[in-house]
Amino acid sequence: MKLQSVRLTPIAFKDPPLLNAAGIHEPYALRTIIELESDTGHIGLGETYGDAPVLQLLQVLAPLLRGMDPFDLNGLRRRAQQVVDQAAPAAAPAFALAPGTDPAKNVQKLYSAFEVAFLDMQARYLGMPLVDLLGGRVREAVPFSAYLFFKYARHIDAPYADDAWGEALTPAQLVAQAETMVSRHGFQSIKLKAGVLAPDQEVACLRALADRFPGLPLRIDPNGNWSLETAIRVGKQLGGVLQYYEDPCPSLKEMAALHQATGLPLATNMVVTDLAQFRANTTVQGSQIILSDHHYWGGLRDTQLLARLCETFGLGLSMHSNSHLGISLMAMAHVAASVPLLSYACDTHYPWLDPAEEVIAGGQLAFHDGAIVLGDAPGLGVDIDPSALARLHQQYLDCGIRARNDAAQMRKYQPSWSGQAPRF
Amino acid sequence: MKLQSVRLTPIAFKDPPLLNAAGIHEPYALRTIIELESDTGHIGLGETYGDAPVLQLLQVLAPLLRGMDPFDLNGLRRRAQQVVDQAAPAAAPAFALAPGTDPAKNVQKLYSAFEVAFLDMQARYLGMPLVDLLGGRVREAVPFSAYLFFKYARHIDAPYADDAWGEALTPAQLVAQAETMVSRHGFQSIKLKAGVLAPDQEVACLRALADRFPGLPLRIDPNGNWSLETAIRVGKQLGGVLQYYEDPCPSLKEMAALHQATGLPLATNMVVTDLAQFRANTTVQGSQIILSDHHYWGGLRDTQLLARLCETFGLGLSMHSNSHLGISLMAMAHVAASVPLLSYACDTHYPWLDPAEEVIAGGQLAFHDGAIVLGDAPGLGVDIDPSALARLHQQYLDCGIRARNDAAQMRKYQPSWSGQAPRF
Repeated sequence: MKLQSVRLTPIAFKDPPLLNAAGIHEPYALRTIIELESDTGHIGLGETYGDAPVLQLLQVLAPLLRGMDPFDLNGLRRRAQQVVDQAAPAAAPAFALAPGTDPAKNVQKLYSAFEVAFLDMQARYLGMPLVDLLGGRVREAVPFSAYLFFKYARHIDAPYADDAWGEALTPAQLVAQAETMVSRHGFQSIKLKAGVLAPDQEVACLRALADRFPGLPLRIDPNGNWSLETAIRVGKQLGGVLQYYEDPCPSLKEMAALHQATGLPLATNMVVTDLAQFRANTTVQGSQIILSDHHYWGGLRDTQLLARLCETFGLGLSMHSNSHLGISLMAMAHVAASVPLLSYACDTHYPWLDPAEEVIAGGQLAFHDGAIVLGDAPGLGVDIDPSALARLHQQYLDCGIRARNDAAQMRKYQPSWSGQAPRF
Repeated sequence: MKLQSVRLTPIAFKDPPLLNAAGIHEPYALRTIIELESDTGHIGLGETYGDAPVLQLLQVLAPLLRGMDPFDLNGLRRRAQQVVDQAAPAAAPAFALAPGTDPAKNVQKLYSAFEVAFLDMQARYLGMPLVDLLGGRVREAVPFSAYLFFKYARHIDAPYADDAWGEALTPAQLVAQAETMVSRHGFQSIKLKAGVLAPDQEVACLRALADRFPGLPLRIDPNGNWSLETAIRVGKQLGGVLQYYEDPCPSLKEMAALHQATGLPLATNMVVTDLAQFRANTTVQGSQIILSDHHYWGGLRDTQLLARLCETFGLGLSMHSNSHLGISLMAMAHVAASVPLLSYACDTHYPWLDPAEEVIAGGQLAFHDGAIVLGDAPGLGVDIDPSALARLHQQYLDCGIRARNDAAQMRKYQPSWSGQAPRF
């Protein structure tokens, strides 16, 4: 089997005005959709970042993949490395929140994007679900958690009608958001994206959630926006309520000090985002739970590697998410179903997706009791809706956004906004 | 694709009177040959330990695999765990040298044995060489090293004619052995199995090898038979000559002290033999080079995992061997060809195999310039010779050996032999 065509389509989809430590989501989020086709007529799908710096590199790599055997993952990694080596040195990103925007991760991002599509093609060729190619399912359903955000009612530049969620800036509004999300999707754990309001207000929100949803595991993620002092204080206030405490402080060193001071299990997708940082963490123990993300950890096989590493070093494993569509959701679910260690519900932004903005045939995927249930369809188990893809690509061309910048967006609301962390 | 039949055949093959720290090889070495067949008519081959404690567990596991999808490696691991959990507690082995005889590794050994056969079947089903299924070749040829042994001219119980190698107990005899092995197979590095004679005699042998083969990397492996003091002394004598210094001392703690004292790169297949020991080693740095062995590290995929772990923690990777036939050799070669990190020539006992004792069709495999060159045949690229298998099985039935015991064999030569290490 040989790759015959490699198609990349940048798309934009509507995104609500969700607040985070770095600013606020823009009206559109960007992704790149990857479609491979083999000489045997099999397809392979992938979904990754749509920001211009990544897209440009994907576009350089894509033609180098034609003629490749989709089983040749070592060859893919070599080509990804070559493309990054030969590219002009990457400028520092205008917006740095998640590792997805870090140019130092470009090889991993390029490799990951196509690795999923290669594996999808392998599995479709074999006529088996991707999870089965990855070693077989250890669970039939992959639990996800409700992902709550503080948010405004509408975008400042309002290119389209308001979303149905409304404003969420108070404990009551946040509880209402959680009620909608839990009742609609059946989630059995809740994560609050924090680092937005004053810490005491966020503590009040978490307490309100704990009161409203007794027994449901709760997490809070201030995205490194708290000083060590604040993080220790809040940790002592919320310790009994938290399943884990995600990225309160911005550095591994502070995370280690926080763990030492509070004993709380700390999770991260900010200070342990590659194998070198994993190694550093084994010495200082700044994080006890690693949040995997196949989009920058090196794809699905390397997510499995990360799971074994976590097992070896006595760490927990959970899963990080950015704004994404159904292809990424299914890739997350297939790998999560293959990993014995993964014992926490995964993060996902998927409930924030406007149903009309999905790119896969049949529209938005459904959660059952908060979980994605794996079926028996080959590969990722989803296909592209060509007209939806064309529409979202046109939206990309029209919207003008070319790289995510939550800080610049926030400056439309607050001109003096710096987005520098830790702010509290 | 489903497994339809699982056949295990214990075999015995002639083995020369090779000396090591624990005693001497018996006249026959044992292996188990695994033959799988699927409902699609594809086969899968494996080769592993033939000792009774392992064979008994393999025989319990084998019928539980019928009907399985050979891609279901997680299911295989679960079944291996169940079999070990339900077995009577394993007795301590009569002979403990390599991890292959350690009952604590039974799950890994069971899993590894069948994992190779499952992967072989997957690759044959796909019509591709195993290395390509494993991610694609990063090298076309896998280098092996000449593996020198001190040896007697003949077995004490002499069930068959003497081998052609003759005695090797002096520097001149050992150099002659190396000359034969290097000229016959083209090896470009040399390992001496040591811990047999007084250390000064072994040092003299290594110096003779260094004089005769200038520029060829040399290794010495006393199998933990030296005290820390002896190992430091010899290390200082041989430091400039050694590529790496393999398992001079029996414990991780002593290895760490030795590295501290000499700065020499220490290799091991004795003190880092699983992931828990790998973790411990990252703290004390008792070994800088891990010798993988898919027979107990968890198969080929976990050998790849080990390579990534070594890369992450700045360790080197080489490969260990026990007495084996061509199926194991090809499994070693395929995985080694898929691993970017593997930068040392692998160990192999294969040159010690009497050509008439090979179980694969076409007879003994050839080294080219000391390397196994991977071809394009599907899977492992070798097939069973049914008449050779039947003959070697009959030899197993006749020879009476049921578990390797180099110490008991040595007591036939030296009745007071204890085999306890460190002896020097």
